[in-house]
Amino acid sequence: MKMLEESVNKRVSLLLKDNRVLEGVLTGFDEYMNMVLDDVDENSENVSRKLGTVVVRGSNVVRIVPK
Amino acid sequence: MKMLEESVNKRVSLLLKDNRVLEGVLTGFDEYMNMVLDDVDENSENVSRKLGTVVVRGSNVVRIVPK
Amino acid sequence: MKMLEESVNKRVSLLLKDNRVLEGVLTGFDEYMNMVLDDVDENSENVSRKLGTVVVRGSNVVRIVPK
Amino acid sequence: MKMLEESVNKRVSLLLKDNRVLEGVLTGFDEYMNMVLDDVDENSENVSRKLGTVVVRGSNVVRIVPK
Amino acid sequence: MKMLEESVNKRVSLLLKDNRVLEGVLTGFDEYMNMVLDDVDENSENVSRKLGTVVVRGSNVVRIVPK
Amino acid sequence: MKMLEESVNKRVSLLLKDNRVLEGVLTGFDEYMNMVLDDVDENSENVSRKLGTVVVRGSNVVRIVPK
Amino acid sequence: MKMLEESVNKRVSLLLKDNRVLEGVLTGFDEYMNMVLDDVDENSENVSRKLGTVVVRGSNVVRIVPK
Repeated sequence: MKMLEESVNKRVSLLLKDNRVLEGVLTGFDEYMNMVLDDVDENSENVSRKLGTVVVRGSNVVRIVPK
Repeated sequence: MKMLEESVNKRVSLLLKDNRVLEGVLTGFDEYMNMVLDDVDENSENVSRKLGTVVVRGSNVVRIVPK
Repeated sequence: MKMLEESVNKRVSLLLKDNRVLEGVLTGFDEYMNMVLDDVDENSENVSRKLGTVVVRGSNVVRIVPK
Repeated sequence: MKMLEESVNKRVSLLLKDNRVLEGVLTGFDEYMNMVLDDVDENSENVSRKLGTVVVRGSNVVRIVPK
Repeated sequence: MKMLEESVNKRVSLLLKDNRVLEGVLTGFDEYMNMVLDDVDENSENVSRKLGTVVVRGSNVVRIVPK
Repeated sequence: MKMLEESVNKRVSLLLKDNRVLEGVLTGFDEYMNMVLDDVDENSENVSRKLGTVVVRGSNVVRIVPK
Repeated sequence: MKMLEESVNKRVSLLLKDNRVLEGVLTGFDEYMNMVLDDVDENSENVSRKLGTVVVRGSNVVRIVPK
């Protein structure tokens, strides 16, 4: 997906199937939509957490919004 | 799917498995039905949001209605 | 599936995993049972809607009944 | 599965994951256990329906009982 | 799986994901763990049924216990 | 996985998706994490059972702990 | 994923789909995100356990946070 390539090194918001939202800088991804984010803020059921670097397994992803 | 090719650059409504509805201009898709939409309005449980560009992972898609 | 090929341009009823029922004219399908229907009436939890053309992702399909 | 080949043109009972039971004459199937049945009686939550010909997507099948 | 080959023509107990238990003589299986059983007794939520021959779709299987 | 190869003929604890725990001697496994265990004790919702030999379909496995 | 390669021999936190959290030293992984961790602390519904070495089936993984 060209859109994902253009989002590398930019901030994106990731919605996961369990309604978790990760916001961070996209630093890499592969064909399964496995993704690596840097400088991540996670929101899940109104709990916020700073996570730093996160690897997300693509099968959990619902949608990605470039910021 | 030829129908999806003909819908590129046109407005579509996307229903996802979690009952989220995304309406926007289809700008790209691949064989897994991963899709890129522009100028997206999202509706989920009566909450509306303007999201701009959105990448949707195909495994979440139920049906697509060209507008 | 030869049965699906013979149903092209005919009216079919599609049951999806979320109990949604789509009735329309089958205009195309592929090996994953992704399908395109025209002139669709959708029924879901007793709500009826006219949708026109619809692309259905095959992974949501339970059964197809040619009319 | 040789057992399925031997069941072609015979009456089978199909249990689906949503507890739907389809009984009909097996007229075809493929490697994914997609199946075509003729002369189908469907039972789901104590509602009976005559459906005629039905194409079932294999991913919904739990078990098949030749009659 | 050599263990399954050695169980052919022997009695096995099959636990499915919906907690259904099938006991019967294993007469065949394939690489997806699709299985054919003969002389099957099925137990599901304390209801017992004699089913004769049964084809089970492998994706429903949790575990197999040779008897 | 080299770790699984080194666990052959040793006792392991297997957690399944339905919270079932199987403890036994790992005698074989394949690329899908289908596994064969000998001398199995099963615990599920505080019910303990001796099962002897068990074939587990890999898609149900959450984690494996060598003992 | 280069990020995972760089995390080998380092401590990571693994979130699984059943909300189980495993923290330990990543000693190996494969293309399915199957992973081997050493010296694991597991937290699940406020129960903590020391597990030693653990093999996790990749299909259960939500996200990985290198520590």
